[in-house]
Amino acid sequence: MLDVLNKRTSASVYDSSHALKKDDIIALVHSATLAPSAFNLQNWRFIAVQSEAGKAKLLPIAYGQQKVVDSAVTFIICGTLEPHLGLPAALKPAVEAGILDEATFAGWVGAAEAMYGSNPRFQRDEAIRSGSLAAMTLMLAAQEMGLASTPMIGFNADELSAAFNLGATDVPVMLVTVGKAGAGNWPQKPRKAVLEVLSFA
Amino acid sequence: MLDVLNKRTSASVYDSSHALKKDDIIALVHSATLAPSAFNLQNWRFIAVQSEAGKAKLLPIAYGQQKVVDSAVTFIICGTLEPHLGLPAALKPAVEAGILDEATFAGWVGAAEAMYGSNPRFQRDEAIRSGSLAAMTLMLAAQEMGLASTPMIGFNADELSAAFNLGATDVPVMLVTVGKAGAGNWPQKPRKAVLEVLSFA
Repeated sequence: MLDVLNKRTSASVYDSSHALKKDDIIALVHSATLAPSAFNLQNWRFIAVQSEAGKAKLLPIAYGQQKVVDSAVTFIICGTLEPHLGLPAALKPAVEAGILDEATFAGWVGAAEAMYGSNPRFQRDEAIRSGSLAAMTLMLAAQEMGLASTPMIGFNADELSAAFNLGATDVPVMLVTVGKAGAGNWPQKPRKAVLEVLSFA
Repeated sequence: MLDVLNKRTSASVYDSSHALKKDDIIALVHSATLAPSAFNLQNWRFIAVQSEAGKAKLLPIAYGQQKVVDSAVTFIICGTLEPHLGLPAALKPAVEAGILDEATFAGWVGAAEAMYGSNPRFQRDEAIRSGSLAAMTLMLAAQEMGLASTPMIGFNADELSAAFNLGATDVPVMLVTVGKAGAGNWPQKPRKAVLEVLSFA
């Protein structure tokens, strides 16, 4: 794991001859969904853009970034608003498996309603949090599979929503391209010293 | 890595007799900072709450959640606003290492100014994105070290900011407790079927 972390870089060049099987894409998203989310909301959605037509549609929306075409797949990772409305369904399997008892289930559903129900900003924050946690596990899973990845915030969110039929509650959190790295990528960029960003209390 | 992902759960019970050395805390935050951030902004900050006084101060702010006291450390993970202002300093080591040339450096600094400069909502989104990406790598690094972790959104952000002297640009994204798991934790909660959250384009 630490090895995977140490080696991960954000690729800018992909091997355009390399494609990914549907099963690999499903495995990547399975890994993504192992990320935690508040109350196990799982308030996320993934669109795997891998067809020629899909890539052509995405390219101008991502301001012409060629990696959208050259990588095997670009995931549109969305967090979803109004997450409390989906919570009962999201938790049902945990109740059925005997992991959560009915009282805990009811408590969480009530708490989520109270926290998110009338708080649009907190809903948006949560959509971005959950989507980002899932994006990070997806990128690390890709690295583990010998693949490169790139998180991207350079896209037109309104055009993306329209072009890929996102729902009113789907917030595109980031794009993540995945594929085989091409030649000429940057090494990992240096980080600030840890003690510059860490303090103790 | 996949093993670490498959095994990670969010702990609710910690072994309160277990402490972490400062070096382990530094190693965890080092791993966190290997997460990507847009333009390599590194717009994050970590406060490791591990002293008795710090924990006592945090407990009521986290609505009395006992894991704040029982775990070895609770990280207050912040994303920072106005990230474009810190970008030149954040990128300087990459320029000095010869990874980024001057033209790319200037281009990124200009682009970040244009994207974030007059867009407070995008600044907040970015703070939450970067903080969440870092939180996820921190939790996986903890798992790899044989430790349990718990992401928490249940805290009073205003009280937290005041009690721990957060700056006006520090957005507390989440709390993450880390320590040795106690007895009686839940197993990993079931997730929705992948094809319920994944579509292809």
